[in-house]
Amino acid sequence: MNVQPFIRKANYYETDQMGIIHHSNYIRYFEEARIHFMNELGFGYDKVVAGGVDIAVLEVRCRYKTMVRYGDTMRIHVTIKELTPARLVVGYRIEDNETGELKTTGESTHCFLSCGEHRVVRLSKTLPELYGLFEQCATRKQAEGEA
Amino acid sequence: MNVQPFIRKANYYETDQMGIIHHSNYIRYFEEARIHFMNELGFGYDKVVAGGVDIAVLEVRCRYKTMVRYGDTMRIHVTIKELTPARLVVGYRIEDNETGELKTTGESTHCFLSCGEHRVVRLSKTLPELYGLFEQCATRKQAEGEA
Amino acid sequence: MNVQPFIRKANYYETDQMGIIHHSNYIRYFEEARIHFMNELGFGYDKVVAGGVDIAVLEVRCRYKTMVRYGDTMRIHVTIKELTPARLVVGYRIEDNETGELKTTGESTHCFLSCGEHRVVRLSKTLPELYGLFEQCATRKQAEGEA
Amino acid sequence: MNVQPFIRKANYYETDQMGIIHHSNYIRYFEEARIHFMNELGFGYDKVVAGGVDIAVLEVRCRYKTMVRYGDTMRIHVTIKELTPARLVVGYRIEDNETGELKTTGESTHCFLSCGEHRVVRLSKTLPELYGLFEQCATRKQAEGEA
Repeated sequence: MNVQPFIRKANYYETDQMGIIHHSNYIRYFEEARIHFMNELGFGYDKVVAGGVDIAVLEVRCRYKTMVRYGDTMRIHVTIKELTPARLVVGYRIEDNETGELKTTGESTHCFLSCGEHRVVRLSKTLPELYGLFEQCATRKQAEGEA
Repeated sequence: MNVQPFIRKANYYETDQMGIIHHSNYIRYFEEARIHFMNELGFGYDKVVAGGVDIAVLEVRCRYKTMVRYGDTMRIHVTIKELTPARLVVGYRIEDNETGELKTTGESTHCFLSCGEHRVVRLSKTLPELYGLFEQCATRKQAEGEA
Repeated sequence: MNVQPFIRKANYYETDQMGIIHHSNYIRYFEEARIHFMNELGFGYDKVVAGGVDIAVLEVRCRYKTMVRYGDTMRIHVTIKELTPARLVVGYRIEDNETGELKTTGESTHCFLSCGEHRVVRLSKTLPELYGLFEQCATRKQAEGEA
Repeated sequence: MNVQPFIRKANYYETDQMGIIHHSNYIRYFEEARIHFMNELGFGYDKVVAGGVDIAVLEVRCRYKTMVRYGDTMRIHVTIKELTPARLVVGYRIEDNETGELKTTGESTHCFLSCGEHRVVRLSKTLPELYGLFEQCATRKQAEGEA
């Protein structure tokens, strides 16, 4: 699977009075990159919803290494860090697109819900095709008991 | 009708690298003040929706007079500038809460939609009680033809 | 001058519970499109600041025609609607990039300030090259007295 | 030290098309609560900056337990989870203000920088009064080596 990183310019309205991108925006960049990643897999969010599944966010985490400034272009790498039938951990690595300097790393943890009733579902049963795509990308696969 | 103004502190994450509140945030302050105003009228948005009506935004306008900075407390006055059965213009005036200095003025223009099908409705027919409350606040009432 | 429109996808985090892009975000899209436009002119904001000028926002206005939804791609056309040595009105027209359907129109009004002391300056004197570029794009030029 | 929790309503523009508050906003609520907490300590951010120190964000983490919806009022408890001369971990706990239901927990990790040159400083030396206030609030104090 050849997944291209997500390229994104930092916007002026995302700066704060320290002259840098406000730290809350990276959580939004992660979401943009995650959606781009799903499209790269050929299984966009609309297809997920059409399959009756919502991907919910259980946790986010972000480590700030060096500052991003207005006008900088970021390159965001997305990886599958953990995958079980009921849980997904997505990893993010933001680099400066010109220099390659590491800017931020982070993770988001997700579970899978049925669209209507919002019951927890097992992705491997409900959307086995997507589960298979995630599996191919996973850098490390865990048995559900360890998750 | 004794409607209290809306009091709001400017947040750090709303600043930009000029060291002032980014101009896009005032549109959000207007919305907060509008919702506060409806609550002050005793007819909150939940009651509007329960009555089968969505209040849609047709236009917003904002004039920036002096800058708001992080930590400033704003006092936002809301008025009904125009009212017809099918259209509402809400006015906003943001002042510094300590000095009274004028910061921003603006307006938002709205129409009324039925919740489900999103057909345009006449507020005077669908929610006459709310229409009556707006009428009491209106600084200037127009016949619908002029609107 | 061959200025390309600005292409932008609507993000998930920009939606609201009505299932549409929240109206405050368009003010941010206008800013992104304005910055893109300056880059297209070959005179980006960094060059403006290097020339000692800040472009301040005096007013914004936005008219909502049809709703933009998550995943829609917008095409934003930027025009110079008015230009005097001391004032600039930028026009925006957001269309659906696939269907061409009109989504939003708007304007932002600007003045020019010296970077340090924030005195009002005449762009025609301080940055005549940029003033000339704006002039070439202006759909309608006004004498300053009429502005 | 009697520190009051931070009370905050969820805004309409913070919802997303799932009908809940978008998860990125909690990072902003944490910042608001942190600033409120500093004010409650009698040592607001302006006093920190006047003392020559910037408090930088190294990491944020947020766990989503139950959804917050538009109109909900949150009560945010802030604690000092870890404190060393060079590092601070702030804890957050968001509850529904009416029912007490747990909504979100999180942490932010900070270091201390000199305002001008942005060198890392030891808070215990540069602002011993603030360090003392944090110490009184700390639920668990660590020797720097363990941090």
